[in-house]
Amino acid sequence: MRPSLVNITINNILDLLKDKNMQPGDKLPTVDSLSAKFKVGHSTVREALKALSAQNLLIIRQGAGTFVSQKQGISNDPLGLGIMGDDISTIFDMITVRLIFEPEIAAMAAQKATLKNLKHINELCLEVEKLIKAGENYDDEDSLFHSAIANASGNKIIYKITQIIHSSIKKNIFVTDNSLCKETITAHRQIAKAIAIGDSAGAKNGMILHLNAQREFLLKNYDLQV
Amino acid sequence: MRPSLVNITINNILDLLKDKNMQPGDKLPTVDSLSAKFKVGHSTVREALKALSAQNLLIIRQGAGTFVSQKQGISNDPLGLGIMGDDISTIFDMITVRLIFEPEIAAMAAQKATLKNLKHINELCLEVEKLIKAGENYDDEDSLFHSAIANASGNKIIYKITQIIHSSIKKNIFVTDNSLCKETITAHRQIAKAIAIGDSAGAKNGMILHLNAQREFLLKNYDLQV
Repeated sequence: MRPSLVNITINNILDLLKDKNMQPGDKLPTVDSLSAKFKVGHSTVREALKALSAQNLLIIRQGAGTFVSQKQGISNDPLGLGIMGDDISTIFDMITVRLIFEPEIAAMAAQKATLKNLKHINELCLEVEKLIKAGENYDDEDSLFHSAIANASGNKIIYKITQIIHSSIKKNIFVTDNSLCKETITAHRQIAKAIAIGDSAGAKNGMILHLNAQREFLLKNYDLQV
Repeated sequence: MRPSLVNITINNILDLLKDKNMQPGDKLPTVDSLSAKFKVGHSTVREALKALSAQNLLIIRQGAGTFVSQKQGISNDPLGLGIMGDDISTIFDMITVRLIFEPEIAAMAAQKATLKNLKHINELCLEVEKLIKAGENYDDEDSLFHSAIANASGNKIIYKITQIIHSSIKKNIFVTDNSLCKETITAHRQIAKAIAIGDSAGAKNGMILHLNAQREFLLKNYDLQV
């Protein structure tokens, strides 16, 4: 155990990722090559990679190598809901947060989205629709649709926070049953269209209506303190 | 190594924390007692506690015992800025996020704050002022002032996200030098007062003015893409 050397190596690896502008999915140099580059032993490199993997920054695939994680350092339970519980009041708090955050993001996306962003949003919109119509679970794709809009805002911090919010939503119980499926199809289409034609107010209002339907559902079906 | 037993024990400990509604700083039962309660060996309990400590849910103090962490499961770099870099555009993205989020939070705090919340906000307001006047670094206390307002909103998710945002701000370079100190004193006072008298619009507008001063500073001093 040489903790300081491991820490130095961790920082060297982080600098390498930044300098080379490495993106999620990119493969890191081998342990051999990192060991030679940073002039430390193989076990030190392995310990550093393991620490960065525990932080969800890297992913170590046995036999295949080490890759930049898609999770980009976001922990498995970023809001610490594991300790907080997932009662209805937490879910209501979450929808309140989304109502503050996501309409503004949709408005920004309408201003900033690239053609690539629009294509991605549209594909996910259709994917959610297909799953709903097939009666299948669409949580993941719904979450990706909202994250794609956040990505289109062009604001890196917004994208990260949206990922945190949506990775935490999945930890909650699915409480809105299927009564909101039809609303979801209509609202997603409306939001995607407004973003595509650069209509900021339309995208913002579409998102308010969409999230408010979920808020109303919770208020109607549960005894909540507003 | 019996990973499944460790995982079961991790979940048992999390359930215990929830059932007993344990708060940050509270002390957990001893390893002996957890081992007897969950009918697993000491090494399994220790491994489970270590895993929860790596997630910043618990803190193990050698000799003193295990405690619920103040960090409540929030990782050391929750937004993964370690990999993203901390250039001026990231800092500008952060202020954009704060301008979406914090004015609404201040408005909620003005509606919901308890006397205990108000006392805490006021203490931190005075503390920041004292440090500024003494020419000392006030980053931590400034961050606590904004977190105390988020706590007063009564929304648990808002409090968590504010902690995430502020723990990430500290990772950025301190770019606004001291020219905003006077503005900070005036704005913090104004926000704290508005919250104390239940003036939602006043609290919201005070927060907009406060954060916008930082935004204007960045725009004036750096070449930024809006």
